[in-house]
Amino acid sequence: MDSTNGSQTLEAQAEAFFDSAPPLQNTHQITQKLDQFIQHKSSPSTNGDARRIVCVTSGGTTAPLEQRCVRYVDNFSSGHRGATSTEYFLKAGYAVIFLYRRGSFQPFCRSLPDDPLVECFEPTDELNIQVREAYSEAVKRAIVDHHAAVTGGHLLKLPFNTIFEYLQMLQLIATSMRCLGPCAMFYLAAAVSDFYVPWKDMVEHKIQSGSHFLDVQLVQVPKMLSMLRKDWAPLAFCVSFKLETDSNILLNKAATALEKYKMHAVVANELTTRKEHVVVVTSADNIIVRRDKSLSGNDVENPLIKLLSERHAAYIKDSSRQV
Amino acid sequence: MDSTNGSQTLEAQAEAFFDSAPPLQNTHQITQKLDQFIQHKSSPSTNGDARRIVCVTSGGTTAPLEQRCVRYVDNFSSGHRGATSTEYFLKAGYAVIFLYRRGSFQPFCRSLPDDPLVECFEPTDELNIQVREAYSEAVKRAIVDHHAAVTGGHLLKLPFNTIFEYLQMLQLIATSMRCLGPCAMFYLAAAVSDFYVPWKDMVEHKIQSGSHFLDVQLVQVPKMLSMLRKDWAPLAFCVSFKLETDSNILLNKAATALEKYKMHAVVANELTTRKEHVVVVTSADNIIVRRDKSLSGNDVENPLIKLLSERHAAYIKDSSRQV
Repeated sequence: MDSTNGSQTLEAQAEAFFDSAPPLQNTHQITQKLDQFIQHKSSPSTNGDARRIVCVTSGGTTAPLEQRCVRYVDNFSSGHRGATSTEYFLKAGYAVIFLYRRGSFQPFCRSLPDDPLVECFEPTDELNIQVREAYSEAVKRAIVDHHAAVTGGHLLKLPFNTIFEYLQMLQLIATSMRCLGPCAMFYLAAAVSDFYVPWKDMVEHKIQSGSHFLDVQLVQVPKMLSMLRKDWAPLAFCVSFKLETDSNILLNKAATALEKYKMHAVVANELTTRKEHVVVVTSADNIIVRRDKSLSGNDVENPLIKLLSERHAAYIKDSSRQV
Repeated sequence: MDSTNGSQTLEAQAEAFFDSAPPLQNTHQITQKLDQFIQHKSSPSTNGDARRIVCVTSGGTTAPLEQRCVRYVDNFSSGHRGATSTEYFLKAGYAVIFLYRRGSFQPFCRSLPDDPLVECFEPTDELNIQVREAYSEAVKRAIVDHHAAVTGGHLLKLPFNTIFEYLQMLQLIATSMRCLGPCAMFYLAAAVSDFYVPWKDMVEHKIQSGSHFLDVQLVQVPKMLSMLRKDWAPLAFCVSFKLETDSNILLNKAATALEKYKMHAVVANELTTRKEHVVVVTSADNIIVRRDKSLSGNDVENPLIKLLSERHAAYIKDSSRQV
């Protein structure tokens, strides 16, 4: 009885969140792009295997404090994890829907400097430019590989800024991917705000700075992972992330999230060591995944995506047996 | 008596802010770069005129909510105003110290798409790349002009993220520029947080999301504009900005800021119309500056920088008469 009441409350909360959110721009175009991408990729390959599609979310969401947004609370995330993982998912044969925070790291471009255009190129004379020697290989690889992934129909990139945009787009993507059944994966690496100011409670204009203190009251964002699992794409393989700065509470929090949101795996990572090792927490086991330091330029995402891809394959096989 | 007490309090506040801030990285290198840049530019030109240097601040500052920063309050600013103004200051013969938020718009690059590398270039084959036809002119101009400004010693770029970094760097720049007397200008277009959480009050680890509400209490950032005018660079020509979403209160707030912080000019702009017109508020007059729509690619910053440059020239002349 408790769980029914609880889930009704969540659905009501989710409905209230979406009802009060500012409407998403270009919904029709996004849906069209998604449907084309999924249709193209989901037709079985020549050997009869169904193609696998993963939605990778990346970067932090913002929670506006004012309707005409000047100030907002931001969740830090460079998007490095999502961008790197996308490359390894593509290598593993997945098609990737990359839902990313505008301005965060992009697949194939993560080794380049902040302002690649002015840092990686130089003029040869008043009218012509060339790639600087030091960046020559990296720049060419970035452009060639990125172009191949996008024009080949393996990579669809969709940007967001706010928590409202992120959750509305995730819902659109998930309902579009539902038709893939267990061949769909969600790899939720974005740093999603836990708290927000409901749009209707927000002041329209800029908060005035007359007083000596500013007291910002935020409410909890409904736990949409449950909605994803229950309603949006119930058969998809779902991987979420738990990031903590305090390693003492990390694994417990990951295990709690696994059970509470019925994830298939939770990737536990600590802020300072997250590029070296992570722990994949599943209902059966906790697997430590380490970056292979013997190979230069290797990333912890290489063995991580290999492991998750294997688990996903086993999950698809298992699902087809049950049918 | 009141004003003395008030200013003592401000100085104490400013000292407390800097004492409690996390130490700025690379202070020595930044100071060295600044001194070289200023020394190179401030030697009188052949016609005997002193060279003018402007510090343009650009983009929004962040106020961290946790010491190991996962969440922070951000002030929205694309940095378009600062980047555009920098180009016009360079055209007007100024040397520019560009203090900018990492990831915000850069001078000469503002007309390019978000991810210029993958958007503006395409592969010609597996190993070579070229600029896409549509961006050819814009990309070449950006790289050639940016390179000329930087290697010519006319443009020094210094990045920041947090309110702590911003104010520490502004103080460094201002004290380095003090030797220029009235030839120095500050053009403070950055959107600086009015509120912050003092570093020592901050929790070390990520705020836990167990409860249904998050109550964030921020305190006012000391008004450092007064410190800049009084202590850091008392003879410099100072221009600050007032951005509001509510046009009814804009001019009053600009006039108040002009008087309170003893600015030489305050640029008043409204969020929705800020690229079309601004009002320059001085103690003598309010001047409406409009973008000239008859010239394509023209910006409101073109007449704005012309006006400020004239006012600055008059201010320098006036200062030399007083000596």
